[in-house]
Amino acid sequence: MSSIADELTSALGPGKVVQDPAVLAAYAVDQAPVLDYQQPLAVVFAESVPDVQAAVRSCAARRVPIVARGAGTGVSGGAHATEGSVVLSLERMNRILDLNPDDETAVVEPGVVNADLNDAAARHGLMFAPDPASFTISTIGGNVATNAGGLRCAKYGVTRDSVLALDVVLADGSLIHTGHQTFKGVAGYDLTGLFVGSEGTLGIVVGATVRLKYLPREVHTIAAFYPDFRQAAAGVLAVGKARVQPAIMELLDGGSLVQLDEIHGSDLAGRGASLLLVQTDGFGAAAEADVVRDVLAAGGAVVTTEASEEAEHLVDMRRNSRGVEVDDQYRVGEDVAVPRSRLVDYVAALESLAETHEVRLKVVAHAGDGNLHPTFWVDRVNDLADAEAAARLNKALDASIAVALDMGGTITGEHGIGQYKLRWLSLEQPEPIRELQRRLKELFDPAGILNPGKAI
Amino acid sequence: MSSIADELTSALGPGKVVQDPAVLAAYAVDQAPVLDYQQPLAVVFAESVPDVQAAVRSCAARRVPIVARGAGTGVSGGAHATEGSVVLSLERMNRILDLNPDDETAVVEPGVVNADLNDAAARHGLMFAPDPASFTISTIGGNVATNAGGLRCAKYGVTRDSVLALDVVLADGSLIHTGHQTFKGVAGYDLTGLFVGSEGTLGIVVGATVRLKYLPREVHTIAAFYPDFRQAAAGVLAVGKARVQPAIMELLDGGSLVQLDEIHGSDLAGRGASLLLVQTDGFGAAAEADVVRDVLAAGGAVVTTEASEEAEHLVDMRRNSRGVEVDDQYRVGEDVAVPRSRLVDYVAALESLAETHEVRLKVVAHAGDGNLHPTFWVDRVNDLADAEAAARLNKALDASIAVALDMGGTITGEHGIGQYKLRWLSLEQPEPIRELQRRLKELFDPAGILNPGKAI
Repeated sequence: MSSIADELTSALGPGKVVQDPAVLAAYAVDQAPVLDYQQPLAVVFAESVPDVQAAVRSCAARRVPIVARGAGTGVSGGAHATEGSVVLSLERMNRILDLNPDDETAVVEPGVVNADLNDAAARHGLMFAPDPASFTISTIGGNVATNAGGLRCAKYGVTRDSVLALDVVLADGSLIHTGHQTFKGVAGYDLTGLFVGSEGTLGIVVGATVRLKYLPREVHTIAAFYPDFRQAAAGVLAVGKARVQPAIMELLDGGSLVQLDEIHGSDLAGRGASLLLVQTDGFGAAAEADVVRDVLAAGGAVVTTEASEEAEHLVDMRRNSRGVEVDDQYRVGEDVAVPRSRLVDYVAALESLAETHEVRLKVVAHAGDGNLHPTFWVDRVNDLADAEAAARLNKALDASIAVALDMGGTITGEHGIGQYKLRWLSLEQPEPIRELQRRLKELFDPAGILNPGKAI
Repeated sequence: MSSIADELTSALGPGKVVQDPAVLAAYAVDQAPVLDYQQPLAVVFAESVPDVQAAVRSCAARRVPIVARGAGTGVSGGAHATEGSVVLSLERMNRILDLNPDDETAVVEPGVVNADLNDAAARHGLMFAPDPASFTISTIGGNVATNAGGLRCAKYGVTRDSVLALDVVLADGSLIHTGHQTFKGVAGYDLTGLFVGSEGTLGIVVGATVRLKYLPREVHTIAAFYPDFRQAAAGVLAVGKARVQPAIMELLDGGSLVQLDEIHGSDLAGRGASLLLVQTDGFGAAAEADVVRDVLAAGGAVVTTEASEEAEHLVDMRRNSRGVEVDDQYRVGEDVAVPRSRLVDYVAALESLAETHEVRLKVVAHAGDGNLHPTFWVDRVNDLADAEAAARLNKALDASIAVALDMGGTITGEHGIGQYKLRWLSLEQPEPIRELQRRLKELFDPAGILNPGKAI
């Protein structure tokens, strides 16, 4: 019997199926911690919808799991290869098929890079709103698969809110079209929403029609330094109470400032123990910025009053604050969200549990959404101490999850469950909800070949 | 064997199950044209979640269809009783259980009236954004069931965009909780989105957590009168090209102006053959209004320059423009949406096909969304002529649907498929999509008791 790689090569033609060990290794994982390393049998670089259909059909015939993947920038392991799987890369399907500035929509292949779509849209005064930190390299297909968020979704919504229609290859290789080309449409069930965020477990997204929003012509950015983290978190609530909706509201704790200083040679930590960055945009940006400055200053912040270039530079630094860090067993970034009113309490709880479990902590937060990214880590010493430290780290992670859920929060605001967060899912979702999702999965993928062991 | 009404009474207690003929008649239909009048066996007025569960269990045991219903303001027949069904009214479950101004969320029972939630939210500078024309009487549960839109969704989104979490009674009477209390959350599949807009066919929504938006402190309203309808439609595109996002952009044709004049004694028709109403809001409202005025004047409109009270009054008139009209076989309001760039073409096509089929036409449109509500009607003369006129009306309706689909549109932007629009659904959605939805329906409701014959 021929191998699955041979069969894929014969189905798709030359140059699309790779078994080079270096490529297999590179495509075995995304940027999440690896719990169960598995090398894929092959990596397929699809160049068209029929390529994807052929790959799915070949895999379906042999019951080989298929892990679809964009740029592999996910941090929950949604694109980690599973045992005996084929990884299907959609990177080569990177054409913007249509960009209609009057309809304010674009039709894209899944491998289009977020930043490339934004560049194309910007020429018409438009933008694709979702802006995950990875936007310079992550793909629209990946954004859709994880329902990606980002910095500006407090005002502009998450990926779901920008997706109008999808082309999806189902587990039997058939192609369906969901949704509508119009802004509004309520014919039948919301299949589009069901596929968004399903991490390639229900179908493989091979095309998307997205709504574009207006690129704001005016942007004001405010940097507010605080003597402590909790006060900065309180500033987020104060802006909300003033009923001003910023485009961006990012919160950084002292540990994050130290890290930025190390990378950039800046002196942010010398200016405060916490930083709140607020960006207003649109025709009311200046007036909104005035209100924000007053409110934050009244709450104890040292607020930038100069032109906002420096603050904008800080936003860029924040966007890249993840740097080249890749999580592993000694360093894990979280993605909890809590109701906004609990921000201060949650921040206090994080600081306290880091102390209790003797782990290091830094926190950045899309604070306007109540979505926090605490990173816990331990310094490595030697094998024995490291094992003990990793155990402490896991206890701190579990505790941070438990506290978030206790406050009415979620274990994942925007990164997805993937593979890494499965261990906490039952804490958030009781068995009837999980069973319902398993049955949905079974309806779409009875043989269980689409990215098994992920998302639900 | 006891009747279903007796069994429901014994399960729910006194005062909740009604068989009075006048009540049965009142709850047999919503505001849509009636194709197949069916009187329900009983009307259940649930007062609690356990009431709903008990009613569903009683109906499930006898395989009696159950039609859930809010205020019955739907215009697609989603709440029409079906043969041998029980109607379940959720009107009495009308408590706002929580309104947290810091979280910017509210937890409501399904029978809370949209306007009541908005009044409560307004005391905190907040609003529930979806504003269907029926907002003074329609319920949040009904808004959720139909994924209702309204005037301000161009800027603030449809109901789906304001719903964070749902409590749902399933077909077996069990209660589940979907979604999250936070703004963002991507744990598992989007069950919340699947229930929104499903018209009570997958489960019965007995509670909702909604996100509130900021009530704008400043609002500017512009009335622009045009010599013809197509020029007014072109004005919508011109505002878009200026990359200004109004909160409201309503388009009215000459027929609609004549009707408003008849109701209110105004002289709108004397001022132009079409009216475009644009409302900007927020901190940038004045600056945005200036741009809008310039753009519309340049496109041939006579634009109000005075204080916006008069224009605001026109928006109120527009909100109520449906008046007491209830559709029947001689008068049908449509709900198509087209990509924005096709607005002018579509408006031209409507005018042309009304002439071809010799039917009367008036059009209002949520033009910012490309969502149009043409109403076609014929004047009644005598039985013979009326039958022929009704046939012409149906041909005009079919033609208006065909043209919208041909332009990449949808048959329903915000009203839902209900019962009345089922005849067109296969024109928009091919068999594989319809089959997939039937299988979803079967998964949630294997016995087919939840609002059968609707939505899909």
